[in-house]
Amino acid sequence: MPEKLRIIPLGGLGEIGKNMMALELGNDLIVVDAGLMFPEEEMLGVDLVIPDVTYVEERHHKLRGIVITHGHEDHTGALPYVLPKLRAPIYCTRLTRGLVEVKLKEHGLLEQAELRMVQPGERVRLGEFSVEFIRVTHSIPDSAALAIHTPLGVIFHTGDFKLDHTPVMGLPTDLQRVAELGRQGVLLLLSDSTYADVPGYTPSERIVGDTLWRVMASSQGRVIVATFASLISRVQQVADAASACGRKVFVTGRSMLDNVAMALEQGYLKTDQDLLAPIERMRGLRPDKVVVLTTGAQGEPTSALVRMANRDHRYVEIQKGDVVVLSSSPIPGNEVLINRTINNLYRLGATVLHSRVADVHVRGHAAQEELKLMLALLRPRFFVPVHGEFRHLVVHAELAKAMGVAPENVFVLEDGDILELDGERGKVVGRAPADLVYVDGLAVGVDKVVLRDRRHLASDGVLVALVTVDRHTGKPMGPPDLVARGFMEHEMSRKVLERARKVAMEVLSKGSGDRADLNARLHEALVQFVYNETRRRPMVLPLTVEV
Amino acid sequence: MPEKLRIIPLGGLGEIGKNMMALELGNDLIVVDAGLMFPEEEMLGVDLVIPDVTYVEERHHKLRGIVITHGHEDHTGALPYVLPKLRAPIYCTRLTRGLVEVKLKEHGLLEQAELRMVQPGERVRLGEFSVEFIRVTHSIPDSAALAIHTPLGVIFHTGDFKLDHTPVMGLPTDLQRVAELGRQGVLLLLSDSTYADVPGYTPSERIVGDTLWRVMASSQGRVIVATFASLISRVQQVADAASACGRKVFVTGRSMLDNVAMALEQGYLKTDQDLLAPIERMRGLRPDKVVVLTTGAQGEPTSALVRMANRDHRYVEIQKGDVVVLSSSPIPGNEVLINRTINNLYRLGATVLHSRVADVHVRGHAAQEELKLMLALLRPRFFVPVHGEFRHLVVHAELAKAMGVAPENVFVLEDGDILELDGERGKVVGRAPADLVYVDGLAVGVDKVVLRDRRHLASDGVLVALVTVDRHTGKPMGPPDLVARGFMEHEMSRKVLERARKVAMEVLSKGSGDRADLNARLHEALVQFVYNETRRRPMVLPLTVEV
Repeated sequence: MPEKLRIIPLGGLGEIGKNMMALELGNDLIVVDAGLMFPEEEMLGVDLVIPDVTYVEERHHKLRGIVITHGHEDHTGALPYVLPKLRAPIYCTRLTRGLVEVKLKEHGLLEQAELRMVQPGERVRLGEFSVEFIRVTHSIPDSAALAIHTPLGVIFHTGDFKLDHTPVMGLPTDLQRVAELGRQGVLLLLSDSTYADVPGYTPSERIVGDTLWRVMASSQGRVIVATFASLISRVQQVADAASACGRKVFVTGRSMLDNVAMALEQGYLKTDQDLLAPIERMRGLRPDKVVVLTTGAQGEPTSALVRMANRDHRYVEIQKGDVVVLSSSPIPGNEVLINRTINNLYRLGATVLHSRVADVHVRGHAAQEELKLMLALLRPRFFVPVHGEFRHLVVHAELAKAMGVAPENVFVLEDGDILELDGERGKVVGRAPADLVYVDGLAVGVDKVVLRDRRHLASDGVLVALVTVDRHTGKPMGPPDLVARGFMEHEMSRKVLERARKVAMEVLSKGSGDRADLNARLHEALVQFVYNETRRRPMVLPLTVEV
Repeated sequence: MPEKLRIIPLGGLGEIGKNMMALELGNDLIVVDAGLMFPEEEMLGVDLVIPDVTYVEERHHKLRGIVITHGHEDHTGALPYVLPKLRAPIYCTRLTRGLVEVKLKEHGLLEQAELRMVQPGERVRLGEFSVEFIRVTHSIPDSAALAIHTPLGVIFHTGDFKLDHTPVMGLPTDLQRVAELGRQGVLLLLSDSTYADVPGYTPSERIVGDTLWRVMASSQGRVIVATFASLISRVQQVADAASACGRKVFVTGRSMLDNVAMALEQGYLKTDQDLLAPIERMRGLRPDKVVVLTTGAQGEPTSALVRMANRDHRYVEIQKGDVVVLSSSPIPGNEVLINRTINNLYRLGATVLHSRVADVHVRGHAAQEELKLMLALLRPRFFVPVHGEFRHLVVHAELAKAMGVAPENVFVLEDGDILELDGERGKVVGRAPADLVYVDGLAVGVDKVVLRDRRHLASDGVLVALVTVDRHTGKPMGPPDLVARGFMEHEMSRKVLERARKVAMEVLSKGSGDRADLNARLHEALVQFVYNETRRRPMVLPLTVEV
């Protein structure tokens, strides 16, 4: 009996298979992407979220390599955390390698890492898998789809993609090779579903360039463009538009400067602008001769743009006439921060253009017609939508069925589902561990109890009850000391706690001298009393000292 | 010298003058609206936010009445909290009165309140102010604009409005009266800016009715419509579409049921449906004969729809074929909760229609062409944009200038700004207290220290250090007991705290016996040690017991 192929999406906060996937065949296993996720509001105090690699770790002897499709954080950012567990060579294209190197260096891991560059069109043999990198367009250059040749057939993994026929940097998607693979026969298509609910086509990056040029040509003031640090092609467009309008570009924001430096060094950015000139040189230039390129388009609290909006940036003071362009679309959850930033910029006299009111951003992912075209070119036997919330996967699955993929060969998976395919049929055969792994400070791993406690503390604070107990009799020596934080305004808190002390004393004076019992009764009495008086439920911590 | 008129926006979380405004002239003062705001994520544990009424309270002898423009929470919801401070009669239209009565009853305040109904077209004299209620369309029936006649001229306050020429319930905006007022001369226009950045016109509510009908007519399964409980006209549309398609409507969600009952009683809803029939009766009916009307369109965690999505609703179990319609647009900040709900509904086999993919909701506020029409009809001497974030006010102010209002007569205010007008000119003369007032449990007022502490606790938890000190020598009797919550996973926490105890002991063994000094040193040492070891900063609480 021939081996079966296993496909396992492993990471994505709500977006299935976004940050990591594992493919396994017999004695070989490869990982596609190793990205990080940003915590949701309720993950209090968590810095980052990364995929659970237990399944791969347990099969470490089979792991042949980690293949990275492109250089965005959500596909590379978990590498510093998972590499120590999964020592394996990393395969990626040139710009991606540049970005991964910057990241691994930061974590002091570059020396141990084995980074191997692959050109689009090249193939890498990883055990039974032969991975061919295929050029696709996305919002970062050097993005790749993967045609993974196996004895059972070809698996085509699109990576993140859109079909931009006139990309700002690099070449368009290698549709010829895609079509050829389709003609030869594709076993399985794994396709980007991020915008599967958007009808039509995603516009080319070009239209953003036109808008930027128009804004720079028509404004009397400075133009301040905020975008993602990794959006190298947007940087190119800003530089081009500025040059065309006789403006000088100044860059601010640490991550933006790092990426620009790397992209210049690697020859990805081509411009007559001196993008690394110190921003201090801006002083004295006429406003209509200046462009500032900055981070902070998502309202990130410590970003350069937000510091400008809060009059807290060292070199850029927002002034009347400034036009601020937010060249990104809001990531769900960031709307409030973004709106606050826009309002503060308006308060300082700036005008703000954002994606709701002007063509200052285009999506980096394929819309429905592009997804259909990919399906039409590849005509896969099996289809698994990936990189999207569950609802996007369902919509994408319906598109595939409408395009003729047999319904029983379309699988909407959740992270951790183990899909097993032979050449003929597929089945979900089990679950791999796929919990979210939280990174907080130096530790990888914050457990659910910690988060639950933090949520409790966040909502009504903490109340410590300190009881002194006679070590001989086991009896309390007086009413407890009560200390609260985050509970109520000081004076109100004092009054409530004064009465709570009396209630606590009554409870303590009854019952046995058993310490656990005493603590439990004290806890219950305080929780109840405080709730009745205030309708709040601080975390009550009874502590006992024996003397 | 004639009296001067004061206009003071007092409440709105980011949206200026949204929830309350004060108008003052000589010895008379009136308040327009008394609404509540929902807390932002960072206002940890806060239940509600209400406007600061200090300015009005200090002039309580002048207060002639509280005028409510319409029955939405953000215009009425603060009444139970401010009425005890501002005992004054409340003036509003009929449906608004019904909704306010429900609310005051809940808080046991209906007896003391003086609620006076006003018909659109009627005038109420409140000292020097004579307040005329004028019919406008909005997403709730019986909405009113106010023409406030004063010795200095007419102040026109639009309230929340759109110009729907074919409203689903009630009559269209009284444009004739608006035009007549414009012809006679208007001193000041205060106009709704919520959608001032949206070009064109806001569509009529009618198009939602068409969509609902189409969905109900074409679906084989049940249709579950989620919307705001106060959106009475949407309830009417759902009932109409259901009747046209031979479906029976069942209502779930406490607030929805309360409002439907009230609207039926007051004769606002007209339908052959038995909207108050118990939802249990749904059982046994064919799916294509059923419509469920529910709360939860914003993903509110305890709402009926979210319970359905979590398989936690007593009567409605989502099944394959169900079509869920989210008939609302996301309020910024709710996107993550809404997306999660949509995904969970898809997981259970439902299809979800929302405002991004179908015409299932229209805005309740005027877009730019309607705002311009209002300006064209009223031709005010002074203009103050209200009800919007600062950026919307700026855009609306620019529209007014483009429409011919003298730039020096256009005022973009912030909450608390005191604008003073005589007939000829205006000036911001000072600031009234306009902090946000937090309601948490039974207490009105949570201070900044409490919130700061909650944020601290939320991010890294709490670490209590308990030191036993000899009362005679003032010396610690041993290493402190350390107790942490919300800090790190148990086993990791134990190891770190074990080492922290030794560090603490070292610190305690040095220095004077002064207790404050001892606590300070202990605090510093623990904060530093824990940060170095873990990069986390729990709140450290040193407690001392003398024995």
